[in-house]
Amino acid sequence: MSQPSSYDNLKATFARMRNLSYAAEILSKDMETVLAKGSHQDRINQLVAIGETTHAIMCDKRVEDWLDDAEANQQNLSAEDQRNLHLMRREWVHEASLPDDLAREASRVAAEGEQIHTQNYKSGDWSKVRDWYTHSFAIARQVGQAKQAKMGLASAYEALLDQFSPGLRAAQVEQEFSALDKALRVMIPEAFARQKSAPAALPITGPFPREAQMVLNHALAKLVGFDTNRGILYAIDGHPSSAGSPDDSRITTRCNDTDFFDSIYSTVHEAGHAIYGQNLPAAWRYQPAGDHMGMGVHESQSMIIEYQACMSGPFLDYLSGELQKTFNRANDPALSAENLKRTLWHSQPSFIRVQADELTYPLHVILRHDLEQRIINGTLEVKDLPDAWNDGMKQRLGVVPPDASKGCMQDVHWPCGMIGYFPAYTLGAMGAAQFFAAAKRADPTVLPEITKGNFKPLNDWQRANIHSKGSLLSNNDLFTKATGAPLNAQAYLNHLSERYLGRPYTPGTP
Amino acid sequence: MSQPSSYDNLKATFARMRNLSYAAEILSKDMETVLAKGSHQDRINQLVAIGETTHAIMCDKRVEDWLDDAEANQQNLSAEDQRNLHLMRREWVHEASLPDDLAREASRVAAEGEQIHTQNYKSGDWSKVRDWYTHSFAIARQVGQAKQAKMGLASAYEALLDQFSPGLRAAQVEQEFSALDKALRVMIPEAFARQKSAPAALPITGPFPREAQMVLNHALAKLVGFDTNRGILYAIDGHPSSAGSPDDSRITTRCNDTDFFDSIYSTVHEAGHAIYGQNLPAAWRYQPAGDHMGMGVHESQSMIIEYQACMSGPFLDYLSGELQKTFNRANDPALSAENLKRTLWHSQPSFIRVQADELTYPLHVILRHDLEQRIINGTLEVKDLPDAWNDGMKQRLGVVPPDASKGCMQDVHWPCGMIGYFPAYTLGAMGAAQFFAAAKRADPTVLPEITKGNFKPLNDWQRANIHSKGSLLSNNDLFTKATGAPLNAQAYLNHLSERYLGRPYTPGTP
Repeated sequence: MSQPSSYDNLKATFARMRNLSYAAEILSKDMETVLAKGSHQDRINQLVAIGETTHAIMCDKRVEDWLDDAEANQQNLSAEDQRNLHLMRREWVHEASLPDDLAREASRVAAEGEQIHTQNYKSGDWSKVRDWYTHSFAIARQVGQAKQAKMGLASAYEALLDQFSPGLRAAQVEQEFSALDKALRVMIPEAFARQKSAPAALPITGPFPREAQMVLNHALAKLVGFDTNRGILYAIDGHPSSAGSPDDSRITTRCNDTDFFDSIYSTVHEAGHAIYGQNLPAAWRYQPAGDHMGMGVHESQSMIIEYQACMSGPFLDYLSGELQKTFNRANDPALSAENLKRTLWHSQPSFIRVQADELTYPLHVILRHDLEQRIINGTLEVKDLPDAWNDGMKQRLGVVPPDASKGCMQDVHWPCGMIGYFPAYTLGAMGAAQFFAAAKRADPTVLPEITKGNFKPLNDWQRANIHSKGSLLSNNDLFTKATGAPLNAQAYLNHLSERYLGRPYTPGTP
Repeated sequence: MSQPSSYDNLKATFARMRNLSYAAEILSKDMETVLAKGSHQDRINQLVAIGETTHAIMCDKRVEDWLDDAEANQQNLSAEDQRNLHLMRREWVHEASLPDDLAREASRVAAEGEQIHTQNYKSGDWSKVRDWYTHSFAIARQVGQAKQAKMGLASAYEALLDQFSPGLRAAQVEQEFSALDKALRVMIPEAFARQKSAPAALPITGPFPREAQMVLNHALAKLVGFDTNRGILYAIDGHPSSAGSPDDSRITTRCNDTDFFDSIYSTVHEAGHAIYGQNLPAAWRYQPAGDHMGMGVHESQSMIIEYQACMSGPFLDYLSGELQKTFNRANDPALSAENLKRTLWHSQPSFIRVQADELTYPLHVILRHDLEQRIINGTLEVKDLPDAWNDGMKQRLGVVPPDASKGCMQDVHWPCGMIGYFPAYTLGAMGAAQFFAAAKRADPTVLPEITKGNFKPLNDWQRANIHSKGSLLSNNDLFTKATGAPLNAQAYLNHLSERYLGRPYTPGTP
């Protein structure tokens, strides 16, 4: 038997780390869904132990030696293995640049933050979480600074961005967001004025029993492509999310008796994430090249399902029939396709990001991006976050939340130390529009089949052009091969203009 | 800040390993209870990764160096810390004596064996599992041989025994089992004859709805001391078991529409295990000294609840009322306390260990002990297991199972490589009787309070004398301090004689 090469050793080591990380995701989901109340600290101890362990594995001097040796001999590797090796190095730099103590504390913040959020956010009492947010941001800043130094980036914030979306730079985000901001400032008032002159939607009043909603949610998750042979959908009270491993996907939704839309669109959104994971290339399982492309592309896959497909006219024609069956309300005009469109294709300022419509949503993200960047850069203090939040909401959306539960305490990201994540939502929305437009061009049956509740043509296109690529391509190559151009805002603006203004987008002449 | 001592480093390292092992237990329970069908291989990969990781942590040269240094300086440690250090060394010897490949394979057998068992045992088709059993025993033999060499033990089998019950030696097991075997050969025929002359029990016929059984199971688990703030009881189809960590206890039971006894006694048995875990000393959490005393003592804690307390007359007086309420059968003579006693205090030969009564149960264990010892020692081949099993059943219990599902394929232990575990059940039954007799002597309210459904006096005695001791005492010291004598069969024989012969046990004059 020949000695394993350095690259073989790296593959085995990265596979073990991936398995440990996936185990941690399952344990976190168990914490959200079934864990007994008095067991939380114990679970946090387990998650911290796994975090410390993967960190220690990555910091083992042998990993650095194997990387050096494999890189020196990479002419022997296939192009795909070279890409995998490149991604291993990137991951190593991200993980190994953190001192042990800092890595441990960041891991604790991630593990405890969700619990602290869940326990406190409903109260809206900022004083209960201010110190935790201060700590969470301080740790994130230290993490950003440590990585910035090693990666030669422009700022600590840029290093945090790169954690979630490999290769994403602060200047790019600024440019995209500023273009979007400019266009939305023109489009939103026009959409509001247009809505005023249109007939109002009929109110859709419940109760809509949660059990019935969950039956529908399970059916819709399957319909849009979620493989229930390798995944589970749960109902919980907290923030919906998707986690687990490609072959063991765990998604959560929530149910509200008076509003099935929240539940349905949370379900299909998280199913969209899950489908991406489930269709990643099995041949590269547990390797960096087999992983997803970062959260921007991940969010594009949740949003292509949620906003592009499941809020399209063809899908609402289909959904109308399903709703009438599910809730025993045949021919209820409130559940007609027409009324669903009037209800959903309606934009208004709101406090809660996850409940915002897709036209105003980017402004929620631009606000968070602005605030978190200022805090990390030291030009805003965490103690001033509620006021800065309220000012930003007033300026951008013209509304001020009544308390912090509808303001700066609403999201789980900041208390978990996930600073730099938010931009991915809006980059994902842009990507979703761009991918969906390309899918419709490539296969004209995509949209007509959705009217019949058949997502196979869309799923096939996604799998062939995005999912099966894993991280084998760069971000620009992925978009260019799939759509003909790198990620840009054009398709998203076209989409918003068609849906909310009822006409094609014409830059400069709104 | 002073440098951490070698002992401090050991404590941190053992705590991390315990947390990883507890994580693996939770992931295994998730696999049993909710995991999607297509996700099994992925989960097995995670469990193998955790097993490899804990093994690698233990085999790190620094651990050996810290042990050497800490032992050289142990005069600075408290007596309890010295005990903890002693247990660390024992654990290190057990784990570090395995070569990497063998440790990995043993870990895979443990992870995959349960799944293979679940998929196949009902078929009773030995040919489906023969190769896996052969492999599982072969790996166990290699493990036993590797450890035997390092521990200076008499046989590979003795090393396997020590894995589950620290300090237990093959000669002790032989001696106890041979005494028991001799006494039971006299007692069992007398019990059968006595039963024949007594009135037959009324048949207890279902259906007993599973939902109602689970409501009762949850209530009984709490009643006997299970802390539901730090634990979960699930219903599954497979083998009931207890796992998790002290602060996150996961127990499973099963329900059968026609027989609530199986469900109830599985529940209180597993709850008994869980209570032991939940009351281990919190100050020693995640350290060897805070762990349980091995499976013999662990089984004594399940059996003190199941057989000693929950099959006692006082408890059956209580249970009769609960059953009549649960199944809406007030005054049903089949559910009278008298009829419960006639039904439960009835001994008969049976095929399935977990359904055997406590009088014949030891013979099931003695059979398994005999067979597994012979296989490990090389005097029996795995291919001959079904015949040897059937011969042993005929010789000991006078019955031959119709197929291997009721024979050598019935238990999960062998396919998971848990060779050397079975003796713990009967050592546990002996210990349970000895502890219960001592508890009744120490607190005369123990039994009367059980009539009222109050387990507090019993739980208090268990916590003070057994649970809170963790592994701070040796096995002999634990028994001697709690009961006045080391573990012996006297109290168990007294108990069996009182319950099944209706008179005190008189050695030599049956």
